[in-house]
Amino acid sequence: MLLYPGFTALDAIGPYQALAGAPGYEFTFVAERRGLVGNGGSFTMEAPMSIDELDQVAVLVVPGGVAAIELAHKGGPLIEWIRAMHANTQWTTSVCTGALMLGAAGILTDVPATTHWYCMDDLRTYGAVPVNERVVEHGKIITAAGVSAGIDMGLLLLEHLAGTDYAQAVQLDMEYDPAPPFQSGHPRSAPPHITAHVKGMYDQMLGRA
Amino acid sequence: MLLYPGFTALDAIGPYQALAGAPGYEFTFVAERRGLVGNGGSFTMEAPMSIDELDQVAVLVVPGGVAAIELAHKGGPLIEWIRAMHANTQWTTSVCTGALMLGAAGILTDVPATTHWYCMDDLRTYGAVPVNERVVEHGKIITAAGVSAGIDMGLLLLEHLAGTDYAQAVQLDMEYDPAPPFQSGHPRSAPPHITAHVKGMYDQMLGRA
Repeated sequence: MLLYPGFTALDAIGPYQALAGAPGYEFTFVAERRGLVGNGGSFTMEAPMSIDELDQVAVLVVPGGVAAIELAHKGGPLIEWIRAMHANTQWTTSVCTGALMLGAAGILTDVPATTHWYCMDDLRTYGAVPVNERVVEHGKIITAAGVSAGIDMGLLLLEHLAGTDYAQAVQLDMEYDPAPPFQSGHPRSAPPHITAHVKGMYDQMLGRA
Repeated sequence: MLLYPGFTALDAIGPYQALAGAPGYEFTFVAERRGLVGNGGSFTMEAPMSIDELDQVAVLVVPGGVAAIELAHKGGPLIEWIRAMHANTQWTTSVCTGALMLGAAGILTDVPATTHWYCMDDLRTYGAVPVNERVVEHGKIITAAGVSAGIDMGLLLLEHLAGTDYAQAVQLDMEYDPAPPFQSGHPRSAPPHITAHVKGMYDQMLGRA
């Protein structure tokens, strides 16, 4: 799993919780440089490897975050690394705006994909075909919707890696029997004034107002 | 949020994602000693404060993990700290087996509470009244079921701290519109052989076989 400053904590730890123990695979967090990586707030975690130390991975997971939008736009070593890794992965996956980083790496051209609801149109910038689904699988590329969708993606990916029984056991172990307290998880269900507020916040933050 | 070696990553980061930005509150991770704290696997994160540096907190969140069962059984400085903090909290909360640590601190006597499905009976050891619900609120104590239930608890707690609109906006921002891939999130819905397998794994791990 690739980390970078400004990634969203749950984007990473949702799929981590599903995937970390997959038999036959060794899970590692990786970043541009070894060491601590923060979400831009009060969460800081360790990436024990740098991208230079990994020239091939079986499974790549790219979490999102507001920072991912900018990283995708600017390009750079992380985007180059994603492109290089993708050539040899079994699975290349993203959560939330991590999809834009896959897109920037040039691997979503004509690929059906999803991302955070706010950024669905941004997928077109990278030639992807936006699909309003929680998880979208196309060949070896799996993209998940915003933040918490990484848990659903992680369990589906785990089924590919370790089989249905194993994935079901992990779902039971993490007691993933969700009971969202509000009807507010997607613009299709959220109160319109709530959607307008969150959209407005991002429009302002990203200078799209 | 209290961290300790062997906590479960998603137990912590689920509610973190909900609560970190609560207006009027400053979120911090705390551990017995400042510095890095690991889950016993490939996840290590930073606790920027030690328990000695905090003599009062408005809101306490105690995540679970297999280590929590042992910590609750043994007692010690973390359990003492929980007891001391609880005297002045607005809210004292737990995820998963974090409830056993609250119990060990003596604050669940006759309190309806929940925890990971595997440990429901362990709650009685600490005088609590097990309730088979995803999130149980009793006075200022809120307990959540296993691992991923911390997301639901975090959003409900956020409603208390910041109001319904704010909590709904955060749910939308984290696109918490779950689509579990399997009917396997709780023993009531999981295939019986899956439940037997996971239960057997814990029985063996904890010497309860």
